[in-house]
Amino acid sequence: MFAPLQNDTFLRACLRQATDYTPVWLMRQAGRYLPEYRASRAKAGSFMGLATSPDYATEVTLQPLERYPLDAAILFSDILTVPDAMGLGLSFALGEGPRFATPVRDEAAVAKLEVPDMEKLRYVFDAVTSIRKALNGRVPLIGFSGSPWTLACYMVEGAGSDDYRLVKTMLYQRPDLMHRMLAINADAVAAYLNAQIEAGAQAVMIFDSWGGVLADAAFQTFSLAYTQRVLSQLKRSHDGVVIPRLVFTKGGGLWLEQMAGLDCEVLGLDWTVNLAQARARVGDRKALQGNLDPNVLFAQPAQIEQEVAAVLESFGTPHADTRSSGPTHIFNLGHGISQHTPPENVEVLVRAVHAYSRRMRTGTPH
Amino acid sequence: MFAPLQNDTFLRACLRQATDYTPVWLMRQAGRYLPEYRASRAKAGSFMGLATSPDYATEVTLQPLERYPLDAAILFSDILTVPDAMGLGLSFALGEGPRFATPVRDEAAVAKLEVPDMEKLRYVFDAVTSIRKALNGRVPLIGFSGSPWTLACYMVEGAGSDDYRLVKTMLYQRPDLMHRMLAINADAVAAYLNAQIEAGAQAVMIFDSWGGVLADAAFQTFSLAYTQRVLSQLKRSHDGVVIPRLVFTKGGGLWLEQMAGLDCEVLGLDWTVNLAQARARVGDRKALQGNLDPNVLFAQPAQIEQEVAAVLESFGTPHADTRSSGPTHIFNLGHGISQHTPPENVEVLVRAVHAYSRRMRTGTPH
Repeated sequence: MFAPLQNDTFLRACLRQATDYTPVWLMRQAGRYLPEYRASRAKAGSFMGLATSPDYATEVTLQPLERYPLDAAILFSDILTVPDAMGLGLSFALGEGPRFATPVRDEAAVAKLEVPDMEKLRYVFDAVTSIRKALNGRVPLIGFSGSPWTLACYMVEGAGSDDYRLVKTMLYQRPDLMHRMLAINADAVAAYLNAQIEAGAQAVMIFDSWGGVLADAAFQTFSLAYTQRVLSQLKRSHDGVVIPRLVFTKGGGLWLEQMAGLDCEVLGLDWTVNLAQARARVGDRKALQGNLDPNVLFAQPAQIEQEVAAVLESFGTPHADTRSSGPTHIFNLGHGISQHTPPENVEVLVRAVHAYSRRMRTGTPH
Repeated sequence: MFAPLQNDTFLRACLRQATDYTPVWLMRQAGRYLPEYRASRAKAGSFMGLATSPDYATEVTLQPLERYPLDAAILFSDILTVPDAMGLGLSFALGEGPRFATPVRDEAAVAKLEVPDMEKLRYVFDAVTSIRKALNGRVPLIGFSGSPWTLACYMVEGAGSDDYRLVKTMLYQRPDLMHRMLAINADAVAAYLNAQIEAGAQAVMIFDSWGGVLADAAFQTFSLAYTQRVLSQLKRSHDGVVIPRLVFTKGGGLWLEQMAGLDCEVLGLDWTVNLAQARARVGDRKALQGNLDPNVLFAQPAQIEQEVAAVLESFGTPHADTRSSGPTHIFNLGHGISQHTPPENVEVLVRAVHAYSRRMRTGTPH
């Protein structure tokens, strides 16, 4: 059904297998910093117009690959499609973040929640298949979802928040309601990611974008446990090929030892984490992904190259024996790329990752 | 000049001396959640109207002490008074955060910066003396400032930010300008805090509110080093009494080992940090302050008591021998109290801290 994969560097690194260089992709690589993306969005009329059309989703997913030698594509979609399918009414006002028409704020609203019919998300699975075909084996395709906790944040707040007061009030005051919502979210996310895998996703990533706003203990109880509930339900392989699972908790650096116990292959890290220390704390159990500050892309080319080298050196050389498995690194930003990023600087970054990491492997980085 | 101190629990805990119970105060304890504060602000006309009037500043500083048996008062002011005195034009629009009329965005603007004449901040020092007199020895008075990096964030961005793009662009692209600005900020903050000490502040706290948005390595270079530059210039004592110095980096939990090396007495922690682990990582060198999630104050009284106990238990019993010094805990929130907090819940919190921590010391917490 799909063409054979020509560049498996990303998938190999996910599985802690040796690669000739460090693979790189960027969170939100298909996005507003690209003029061709803005043109597509103008044609589609809105963000959701892009995301709900398999043709547009395919078009914009491939745009960054036409410019840069990236090692993976990621489905163009949003982390909040699942609660939208639950009937909460997702919309994106221009220049603002996502918003739900009917947030979930009381017992009655929680009682009504259920795992949505996956047919309502058919547009996502159709996009996955369409993108996978269009990629024609160039690089693997990553599917994704928000984590159960991150979905709950938006479902309760109804929009972004700077204090998470409403969702945390429910958490502290009515933990029973919060657990019920998170269990439903987890089962829905698992079904959603499994359907993406069946549609052609070659890896899946869970974005726990707001795990880091939780207090210690609350994170483990209300975010980590439900991320694990998703992971435990995911397909390990499809058509005989292993499907790596990636988990990214923004602000989760303090909990790496506990995240190392997750049933997944890769942990994503934000820029506050020292990669050498992360590698020591996580051990050989996971590949690590990250973690350049996206704001480095506003510096000059030579400065970008220097910061890229610093991230690669912080992780260190993956391992000497190219046939054995061991800790591996997937280069990425520590968060989504800024819409204000000069596109030519992304070219500098991607080429620097490839060139420097090749030289590290041959022992001649400088 | 000032009445003798009746309750030295906070100061003793800062200096890692034994106390009968765990002292407690709350960041932003004089603030909008109190109806009497809102009445004062309405009379004064604006936030800066309150802050620039020693009488109003005294009135609102004492308001929470009239309600709750808190163990410290903190000067009512803002973290951004220093750049205001540099001529940047601080204002607070209703319902919004601080804003500077003339942000510092280029080489020419940085070149113009200098340590302001402390006479421009006389209203702050007058407020300190006035509050100290009005306290009449009830509890000690804490002075404070923003950290050099946190001031720089606002000075460059001109307001709050969710990506810190402008200040980080300067940091990555023109580190020379950033270092110059931070050096000036550090020397200004040191002079400012020393003047607060001379005016009557019995402890001083540096709020590194935005240190946690920096990448690893950038934090050490652009935040921690300049916080240390402030600390190294601060008066160790005044009128023969030691003046404890507190440093709070929101989101700084990953860097505790490095913060433990700061020349200060107390490290403030946000709610993401596990206090038992922090105590193990910091060792006996510092007292720790924190770290209840302010959103716990939206729960029911019994739930608040339970979360207070969890924080106290996480730190553990300070030490058995009441005459020796050792690790000590100052109870606080992990961030400023929310304006939406029900005032009666603060009463529950303060009483729970005192009661539970007394029982812990006698070995009968439950």
